Amino acid sequence: MAADEPFHTDELLIIGPGMLGTSIALGLKNRGFTGNICALARSTDTLKKASKSGAYSMVTDDPEQALDGATLAVIAVPLSGFRSVFAQIAEFGGPGLIVTDAGSTKASVIADARAGLPDLSRVIGAHPMAGSEKAGPLAGDPDLFAGKPCILTLTDNDDPQAVQVVTAMWRALGMSILTMSPDEHDEKVAVVSHLPHLAAVLLVQAAEELGGLDLASTGYRDTTRLASSNPPMRADILLANRGPVRRALAALIEHAEQLDQLLAAGDRDAILALLSQSRDARDRWLDRKPSSDEA
Amino acid sequence: MAADEPFHTDELLIIGPGMLGTSIALGLKNRGFTGNICALARSTDTLKKASKSGAYSMVTDDPEQALDGATLAVIAVPLSGFRSVFAQIAEFGGPGLIVTDAGSTKASVIADARAGLPDLSRVIGAHPMAGSEKAGPLAGDPDLFAGKPCILTLTDNDDPQAVQVVTAMWRALGMSILTMSPDEHDEKVAVVSHLPHLAAVLLVQAAEELGGLDLASTGYRDTTRLASSNPPMRADILLANRGPVRRALAALIEHAEQLDQLLAAGDRDAILALLSQSRDARDRWLDRKPSSDEA
Repeated sequence: MAADEPFHTDELLIIGPGMLGTSIALGLKNRGFTGNICALARSTDTLKKASKSGAYSMVTDDPEQALDGATLAVIAVPLSGFRSVFAQIAEFGGPGLIVTDAGSTKASVIADARAGLPDLSRVIGAHPMAGSEKAGPLAGDPDLFAGKPCILTLTDNDDPQAVQVVTAMWRALGMSILTMSPDEHDEKVAVVSHLPHLAAVLLVQAAEELGGLDLASTGYRDTTRLASSNPPMRADILLANRGPVRRALAALIEHAEQLDQLLAAGDRDAILALLSQSRDARDRWLDRKPSSDEA
Repeated sequence: MAADEPFHTDELLIIGPGMLGTSIALGLKNRGFTGNICALARSTDTLKKASKSGAYSMVTDDPEQALDGATLAVIAVPLSGFRSVFAQIAEFGGPGLIVTDAGSTKASVIADARAGLPDLSRVIGAHPMAGSEKAGPLAGDPDLFAGKPCILTLTDNDDPQAVQVVTAMWRALGMSILTMSPDEHDEKVAVVSHLPHLAAVLLVQAAEELGGLDLASTGYRDTTRLASSNPPMRADILLANRGPVRRALAALIEHAEQLDQLLAAGDRDAILALLSQSRDARDRWLDRKPSSDEA
């Protein structure tokens, strides 16, 4: 594909104009996209707010109307909504429709697409690694994605034009593109995103059981921050990525049991080595880390 | 005790003039303390920097000289150094010397004091809940403690005048005083301070084992922040507070295993309930939390 072709599509459709979807629409408009952007949503409240956001030339709850003439659809609904979205695309999408998404897991999205669509060659899975604790169309931020990485899960069967259009769209938002398989993506985010969320939840559970919150401070606050994430969205992610998440959780438990052995033995040298190695590993990562703000 | 008596002591001695000790000295000077402040340290480098900090009227590596005439000693050395400090106090401290400390655990400090001193009535254990990732005398910050809580571990045998002087000193730094037993303190900080540190270390260990750091983002960064804490200081804390830390770690492992069961069963309702309950518990704590900045 031509790496730097500018983004163009005739009719852009945002399916799920929440915070993420509206940030995409606003970001593209701000960066010079002048085509139509339509929003498809089920709830009247979301439709009203999407309309108020100024991001869309049309908002509707009718999938037939929304998909009529659409050339690129971006799915930005919760993971549990993907199946019904693919069914709508199968029913009402045109033959040349290109599809991408903003889902936090990728194997489940591909599985849902495979279950709903006869041809996946123009479905280019994406995970734009940017987020916010805010929700809804009015929380849309045109600069949400700028400077952040976007994972594309490419396959050999992809339509080259679809890859070009989707790549150009995420690039137009200021994102840097990484490519990997859906499985590699899911294993990695299980470790560095879903497991930290679970650790935060477990720390809150332990404090609820054992007490001590009157002495909790910034260490507790920061380490548990992810426990304040949106519960239904997180439940969707954990279940969609259940296999990798359980493997990551098993590793956490195993390391916890090893650490407990060192504490039981009072082995200061081994504990010090573990803490030093962990600090060094984190500091190495901080030094090399790209800028990404996803929770 | 008279709650609001101003702080006074004739000769203040900071044993261990690192970041914490020097913050105490600078904070008291900034808030009107005009008496002598002496610093006792072993390393020549620390003595030079302590001298350069402008916080002390005298710096020395001679415990006899330092303790001669001292009326209040504040121990701000790492936990592994308390035993030898109490031995120095036993040998060179005057009969009226009042002692407090800035150690992060309390039962171990009291045990070390009991092992070294014939009389503990003028030893008033303290845990000022403020910290910094910086170290050394030149990182001293006169406002480090302002607005933060300080735990005092009082007992029935305490000398009332010692309680008054020590309380007044921490108050003079702008701290709010909480009192509890050493055991209660240690159980609580195990849950809300030491366990979050261990969770951060375990997350780093899991990522080192399983990979994925190229996709790590702010969620990973914040949840693992405590893994960058000073390893020798943290090893001291974990070993000094081994019993409560192991109980907290066991609770974490148990909750992790319960969560894994829910994931294995694909029980979305139970997972959603757990996530919602955790988010609500954290948000309740955020709403009531006092200001404290300790890592």
